[in-house]
Amino acid sequence: MITSFHPPQRTLMGPGPSDVHPRVLSAMARPTIGHLDPAFIGMMDEIKQLLQYALRTENPLTMPVSAPGSAGMEACFVNLVEPGDKVIVCQNGVFGGRMKENVERFGGEALMVQDAWGTPVSVDKVRELMQQHDDIKALAFVHAETSTGVCSDAQALCRLARDYGCLTIVDAVTSLAGVELEVDQWGIDALYSGTQKCLSAPPGISPVTFSEAALEKVSKRESRIPSWFLDKKLVMGYWGGGQKRAYHHTAPVNALYGLHESLVMLQEEGIENAWQRHAMHHEALKAGLETLGLKFTVAADARLPQLNSVQVPEGVDEAKVRSLLLQNYSLEIGAGLGDLAGKVWRIGLMGSSCTRRHVMLCIDALENTLGEMGVELPSGAAAAAAATYAAQEQ
Amino acid sequence: MITSFHPPQRTLMGPGPSDVHPRVLSAMARPTIGHLDPAFIGMMDEIKQLLQYALRTENPLTMPVSAPGSAGMEACFVNLVEPGDKVIVCQNGVFGGRMKENVERFGGEALMVQDAWGTPVSVDKVRELMQQHDDIKALAFVHAETSTGVCSDAQALCRLARDYGCLTIVDAVTSLAGVELEVDQWGIDALYSGTQKCLSAPPGISPVTFSEAALEKVSKRESRIPSWFLDKKLVMGYWGGGQKRAYHHTAPVNALYGLHESLVMLQEEGIENAWQRHAMHHEALKAGLETLGLKFTVAADARLPQLNSVQVPEGVDEAKVRSLLLQNYSLEIGAGLGDLAGKVWRIGLMGSSCTRRHVMLCIDALENTLGEMGVELPSGAAAAAAATYAAQEQ
Repeated sequence: MITSFHPPQRTLMGPGPSDVHPRVLSAMARPTIGHLDPAFIGMMDEIKQLLQYALRTENPLTMPVSAPGSAGMEACFVNLVEPGDKVIVCQNGVFGGRMKENVERFGGEALMVQDAWGTPVSVDKVRELMQQHDDIKALAFVHAETSTGVCSDAQALCRLARDYGCLTIVDAVTSLAGVELEVDQWGIDALYSGTQKCLSAPPGISPVTFSEAALEKVSKRESRIPSWFLDKKLVMGYWGGGQKRAYHHTAPVNALYGLHESLVMLQEEGIENAWQRHAMHHEALKAGLETLGLKFTVAADARLPQLNSVQVPEGVDEAKVRSLLLQNYSLEIGAGLGDLAGKVWRIGLMGSSCTRRHVMLCIDALENTLGEMGVELPSGAAAAAAATYAAQEQ
Repeated sequence: MITSFHPPQRTLMGPGPSDVHPRVLSAMARPTIGHLDPAFIGMMDEIKQLLQYALRTENPLTMPVSAPGSAGMEACFVNLVEPGDKVIVCQNGVFGGRMKENVERFGGEALMVQDAWGTPVSVDKVRELMQQHDDIKALAFVHAETSTGVCSDAQALCRLARDYGCLTIVDAVTSLAGVELEVDQWGIDALYSGTQKCLSAPPGISPVTFSEAALEKVSKRESRIPSWFLDKKLVMGYWGGGQKRAYHHTAPVNALYGLHESLVMLQEEGIENAWQRHAMHHEALKAGLETLGLKFTVAADARLPQLNSVQVPEGVDEAKVRSLLLQNYSLEIGAGLGDLAGKVWRIGLMGSSCTRRHVMLCIDALENTLGEMGVELPSGAAAAAAATYAAQEQ
């Protein structure tokens, strides 16, 4: 007989999920109600408002897709890419490659802009490609590449797209609530995110927003959308507002309780304060890691505070380090993905996992673990992090 | 400022979600761990085994899709239907229509077998159509139509499909754990279900299973699957077994805790006992409702015990009744859908909502509410239900 599952209590400092706050966990355990219950519909409206707040947008189509970030990605591409559409896809990590897959599976043509993993998308290369083609329908890029920890200049890329009259599709899975993200001000047309990164809700839901121009593209489509579940025209009958909701699918009720609570917490903190918090703890973590002699993959000016990709010191068995951290400290950090597999660790400081307690634990655990494995390390990492906090307080 | 959401405590007797057991709710609130954590991977294996148990199958591809039932449906069709494929789709309610949408959106041709809403799929009509065409690739039908409460003869339909050499795609959203369902014995090739019906886990996850023949069809596809998120070849890199899992998407960790717990509870009860329990409480509910003068939509021999569709008495404002039940008893029953909108109520007896307490509450609440609205009713409904229980105990 299989019995109840009792997970270990971890500290999650990988690329997501991040630690889920007890307030969010207990929200998930509240009694399930119907997805058409008036009380639930009231909560749906609040989630919409809270997402608009977090995304800095007034887009009426702002809602959580009832599935993980990859489905949010698919919701954007399946609605916005028609067979034959040319889409510029910027790849500087794993998730740009997934965007390419999406474009092609829906019959579009992906024109690739390749940049080295760990560097931002080159705005110049994108401009060149736009100059060469006059029929680009959309520009797709990843704001915060979870696989490398690099932040691209979303504002500049969106301005460029606007200049050339094409839509933008932006992956903001890891950026939302961790660094500045301005949907309306930057003119982002379609964006998807995730709940398990800087929002610190459990994985499984993907916030998306579509601008008016994106909606127009959907409504003018000539071909049928090759998905029923993700068809925005249908989904909006349920999420669209008003007390009269058309049944589309059964919403993941309890998961949405969790998302609601995490968004309430974000609003209590204030979105700008959340950005500031991520920046502050990143500085302390960086001071500690650099004192240990670890090198960042990404240059300082393009580094995401919430996803710290550092190079594995030569000769160190990186998987063993992660395994020891899990075993001895119940601490999860992330492995490298794709081109960076085996070469880097990804240390997340996201949402509820972005606190002084996390920073100090991570430095201590890494220092001890590497030391026990015989790596010679300079001392003073914890002191360097603490000094950074002290300096920031002044 | 928007504050924390505290849902009312309902009794859920609609078409799903059903009442979620406190054991399942508290499982959802356990600490989130990583989707690649060894402890999580062990739990994934258990979920697979428990689903194989519940579905009576040894199919290695048996797993929960990380999204609601409609995505499970899409996972079956998007993988198994190629452009130009002829698929017989049986429609006798809302969900057959959705299958048609799926076939067409993925480029297939849907040959429809229409039956009146509330009657089972006609095996004879399907046979006729199969005789007329020699290039049918699949037969798709709904085992338990949630919109009407009718059960179709899945065993006979699957035998027929086998005789004519085509695959079967079966909607078992409402049947799983409520009535007999035998994936291997009946020879079902692809099946999707939901968690929020007779499994009584929160909505948001869709168990699916694919037979060897279905997998062969997927592997021999000539066209690319127009979905990345639901591509079974990719998903199985994560769900496929062994300690080495390829990251595909971030699994909905806490929702899967809930599903795991609900499946553990099902295994404790025993699947056959669960079928039996649904049948028993249905008899008592039926005795009570019929004493009240309410008529069932579906003939007795094709009626689902877990979804009781009854006709709204003439002249009664059905929405007002549901609203009063919610207001005065915090009891949710379902409205009609599609052709049956405004004409029927759908009373669910699913999973944790299938107990004597639920049956007696529903009869009492309906009797009082209809009485207060001036409908003249025979007395003795509760007594009739109680007598049915007494008779069954003998």
